[in-house]
Amino acid sequence: MKKLSDLGERKAIQLISKILSKGNVAVGIGDDCAAFEFGKDYLLVSTDMISEKTHIPKIMKPWQIGWFIVAINLSDIAAKGGRPLGLVLSLGLPKDASESFLEELMKGADKCATKFDTSIVGGDTKEAYELMLCGTAFGTVRKNEFMGRKGAKPGDIVAVTGTLGKAAAGYYALKYNIENKEILKGLLEPIPRLKEGMALAKAKVITSSMDISDGLSSSFYQLQALNNVGFEIYKEKIPLSPALLKFERKKDSDVYEFAMHFGGDYELLLTLPYDEFDKAQKSLAKTGTNLTVIGKVTKEKKISIVDRETKKILFDKGYEHFRKRVFY
Amino acid sequence: MKKLSDLGERKAIQLISKILSKGNVAVGIGDDCAAFEFGKDYLLVSTDMISEKTHIPKIMKPWQIGWFIVAINLSDIAAKGGRPLGLVLSLGLPKDASESFLEELMKGADKCATKFDTSIVGGDTKEAYELMLCGTAFGTVRKNEFMGRKGAKPGDIVAVTGTLGKAAAGYYALKYNIENKEILKGLLEPIPRLKEGMALAKAKVITSSMDISDGLSSSFYQLQALNNVGFEIYKEKIPLSPALLKFERKKDSDVYEFAMHFGGDYELLLTLPYDEFDKAQKSLAKTGTNLTVIGKVTKEKKISIVDRETKKILFDKGYEHFRKRVFY
Repeated sequence: MKKLSDLGERKAIQLISKILSKGNVAVGIGDDCAAFEFGKDYLLVSTDMISEKTHIPKIMKPWQIGWFIVAINLSDIAAKGGRPLGLVLSLGLPKDASESFLEELMKGADKCATKFDTSIVGGDTKEAYELMLCGTAFGTVRKNEFMGRKGAKPGDIVAVTGTLGKAAAGYYALKYNIENKEILKGLLEPIPRLKEGMALAKAKVITSSMDISDGLSSSFYQLQALNNVGFEIYKEKIPLSPALLKFERKKDSDVYEFAMHFGGDYELLLTLPYDEFDKAQKSLAKTGTNLTVIGKVTKEKKISIVDRETKKILFDKGYEHFRKRVFY
Repeated sequence: MKKLSDLGERKAIQLISKILSKGNVAVGIGDDCAAFEFGKDYLLVSTDMISEKTHIPKIMKPWQIGWFIVAINLSDIAAKGGRPLGLVLSLGLPKDASESFLEELMKGADKCATKFDTSIVGGDTKEAYELMLCGTAFGTVRKNEFMGRKGAKPGDIVAVTGTLGKAAAGYYALKYNIENKEILKGLLEPIPRLKEGMALAKAKVITSSMDISDGLSSSFYQLQALNNVGFEIYKEKIPLSPALLKFERKKDSDVYEFAMHFGGDYELLLTLPYDEFDKAQKSLAKTGTNLTVIGKVTKEKKISIVDRETKKILFDKGYEHFRKRVFY
């Protein structure tokens, strides 16, 4: 009998996708959000679950757990160019959890929601053996501004918002017992790129978009599966987090490898026509966030990383559940 | 340090409600669904979580678990008179769960969604120590047809759809090892009252509405807290499930007590003006489901049950998490 641990998360999702009947949804399983037609808008819906076992390191404070579950849900709305309407948040709580734990958790969740001009409008609380949180975010986007995962074309350039490796730097700090709140925040208090997503959507030049929650390499494999294209990425162009660069001389730290595979950064990965880069960058500039070109979309369905010496295939080392656990 | 087990679920929700900032939501925490203004409609959102520990008895087949999580989420949309748009479904799965377990679970979930003309449009899968499912359902309702929990007025009559005690009968069957698939279905495969909710909403006479997921007595306490009213219920008027009546002569079965306190029936509990009962019943008749008057709304803030001999206070014995576990 085949176990889910043999199957891996992505195969599990394929299996689920085959079973489910198609409804009246405009965009369904396989994108960051589902999208429904609502007049001139799409209604966007996305859900994310985290468990003590896989996503909540012991060092995470209750406030940060609350922030985290809201942030990662909003990140999916951001990746589609959406404006959040609200979230619901369900909590599976162990019986011996304290009242103050719940209070702090909800304060963190509320803080993240209000920081991004939205709110938590409902939820559910249930007793459970382990701490388990499930958020669902919903939002809206004009149909002609929606940034789906499908649409990348050969010749398009590949770009990312902000810098990569913030979460990886936080992981390093934990590993080497470096007490640096700012660096830890990169791992434990991610920032959903909502302003950035809306600004890019307004430019109407993005051909595909997703958030990089599972790591850059994993994201390319997901875009490739949907778009029938390949990617050629220039290793040196990947914008590294200054926090990560601090660890560059540590023995086991190939920082580029880490920035590519670690995940947890919640930046946006985008493709767009070469000629439209200026327009996108100008639109994004108002948010104070950089847009960096890191490669191009190719006709050949290979994902390769180019460094100064050689072209080599970039393997999928992104975080996948059931099969392996990359962090914590 | 106060534990959640001392606090109880309802107090925990009050605590959460105090912490959360109010957003642009028309109806927020405390109702079956949150509601957002969307032109002439409300967008309804509701979420429900179940865990192996509290909601999934060992006898439940994977297909039934899938059906159950979808059904209870749709029930909240039903209680507001809504038409479902879709659901997202997140799964926390143990590593040793089998591929066929996941397949069957998703088939059950899909079957329940399609049976009620909707679909599962996305989700999340995560590794967890115990099986944990979290669904979020969304739907729409015309603003002037929305049936909220607030609005019950002294003098209104109290009514329920269908019969009560179906879930309790299933529990009895389990307890006494009675192999009767139909009776077990009452507990394990609840029917969300979507058609009924929409039909009642169209009548525009309902002053308050909620689903009876936690038991009838518990539901009255929840309505009382919101409406500043009381309830006088006629014990003999409560429409009992024929399945429950089968167990009437068993030693420990005061069937009315059980029908009132057990929960898990997912019928709708409604209040409406005395003069409008015929209109509501006529509207509901098209669905083939009965509407039964079981009592009235009172000015005095007491919840009392009236039987042939005496008036006595009905205690809140509904299912509440953290503090106690009534079934399984």
